[in-house]
Amino acid sequence: MIDKNEVEEWMKTLQVDICAGMEKADGKARFKEDIWQRPGGGGGITRVIENGAVIEKGGVNFSAVHGILNDKIRKTLNIDATSFFATGISIVIHPLNPFVPIIHMNTRYFEVDEKTNWFGGGIDLTPIYVNKNEAEIFHDKLKQICDKFDLNYYPEFKKWADDYFFLPHRNETRGVGGIFYDRLSASENKSIEDIFEFTKEVGKTFLKVYLPLIENNRNREYGEREKQWQSLRRGRYTEFNLVYDKGTKFGLETHGRTESILMSLPPMAKWIYDYKPERGSREEETLILLQKIQH
Amino acid sequence: MIDKNEVEEWMKTLQVDICAGMEKADGKARFKEDIWQRPGGGGGITRVIENGAVIEKGGVNFSAVHGILNDKIRKTLNIDATSFFATGISIVIHPLNPFVPIIHMNTRYFEVDEKTNWFGGGIDLTPIYVNKNEAEIFHDKLKQICDKFDLNYYPEFKKWADDYFFLPHRNETRGVGGIFYDRLSASENKSIEDIFEFTKEVGKTFLKVYLPLIENNRNREYGEREKQWQSLRRGRYTEFNLVYDKGTKFGLETHGRTESILMSLPPMAKWIYDYKPERGSREEETLILLQKIQH
Repeated sequence: MIDKNEVEEWMKTLQVDICAGMEKADGKARFKEDIWQRPGGGGGITRVIENGAVIEKGGVNFSAVHGILNDKIRKTLNIDATSFFATGISIVIHPLNPFVPIIHMNTRYFEVDEKTNWFGGGIDLTPIYVNKNEAEIFHDKLKQICDKFDLNYYPEFKKWADDYFFLPHRNETRGVGGIFYDRLSASENKSIEDIFEFTKEVGKTFLKVYLPLIENNRNREYGEREKQWQSLRRGRYTEFNLVYDKGTKFGLETHGRTESILMSLPPMAKWIYDYKPERGSREEETLILLQKIQH
Repeated sequence: MIDKNEVEEWMKTLQVDICAGMEKADGKARFKEDIWQRPGGGGGITRVIENGAVIEKGGVNFSAVHGILNDKIRKTLNIDATSFFATGISIVIHPLNPFVPIIHMNTRYFEVDEKTNWFGGGIDLTPIYVNKNEAEIFHDKLKQICDKFDLNYYPEFKKWADDYFFLPHRNETRGVGGIFYDRLSASENKSIEDIFEFTKEVGKTFLKVYLPLIENNRNREYGEREKQWQSLRRGRYTEFNLVYDKGTKFGLETHGRTESILMSLPPMAKWIYDYKPERGSREEETLILLQKIQH
């Protein structure tokens, strides 16, 4: 048995902890907080940071909403229940320095009744320049926390992330992947409490994996060329989020708070027609890795 | 009876004429041409211009494709036929000067057999700063050409544009509208030839309405503030094209040529969290007009 208020409190505390950690790392900008109510029930706390020393734009959203499920959503979720409770945290960080990767994390809990409830979540990395060593360390860390709970988790959730964070029209993965899971509910060998513990672990991993990536790269030199490549890759990020991201789609379709949903968009993005990086360049190397990884 | 080759030739000639007119107006940049083949049948000519004196990024696409309709598309179109022919022109111009509006035009012809064929099209304006006088002149011109064919066309097709070029999550129209029509086929009082004539008129109107807007505004002074507002409005344009535009969606889903489909995206776009223009500013005035016009 799980107490939804406990899950909600945990999500809220995670938001506070992550914002504190990110502000400390940034050292200059502070999160701006907007508290909002959802007309149908519940609400959220949106925290956005802009023009920092490390973070050009980033958002850490908390929400806990409840209400009536309309037919369309019941059909999508394939459930009969008419009322729901959902709480979650969603994070996207767009760093200033092109050598610090974009990161995304999400943890969520959904409940229609005591027997029908599940967790979802994930964390994935989108480097502007793929650093194989950093990608390996990132995946190793995720594998470690997965393995503590179930040896099937990492291979399964890594594949899920690879399949999900993919732009078919570009034949590119969004980044170097990570883990992604959804509708993880109690099973023969796992209680819903176990899955909550796993989700807590995923949440706690955010600062552990991201702060070193910031520290290692925040002072790396870059110029117009790297900033331009970052803008083009942010264009791809925009394409993914507006065309394929299920959370964005669900949010916009259910008339969620637009500014909270679209906080994931980059501060700036560019599109150059049929842009092809120079042969043999680091930009081309990244493109090749994103096209080849897992596909 | 309509000869599809004649329609195709007309579309191709329109592309050439419009590109010539736009190059002359720009005076600096030239269109780059890419000829492409569609694996299933047919192909297209994509023409893109970048970094001009007037046009920061613009595309004029021609395509003429044929092949087999899959079940999904047949269902969407609500037709039984299994093979099709489609030809069209699609234009999006993103000017450098924030006082020159973004323009979009499309003319298209679709045929499954001699009896089942139709035209679609439209032209609409997206100013960064709404100029009421220019918007009125633009609409008057469109009304004039509509009225020559059918007095119902303008009110009907204007409403269609207003309903279509709308971002529900922002409660904003994309711009000041224009006309939009689809599946316009022969009826009691119109032959398919009449509708072809009307579509020709729409195509010919492009340079007539846009060149004066370029000439009147290309040399207007602007600074960082206007360029920033342009970037934010281009963000909205990106949101519309990636989330709602049916042509983009259809193109990406049917594995069309990505670079031709996404030529409509701006050269650069910005997103600032919960941005609100200064009270009483020209930026706020535009936002109010876009929120109020037609809704």
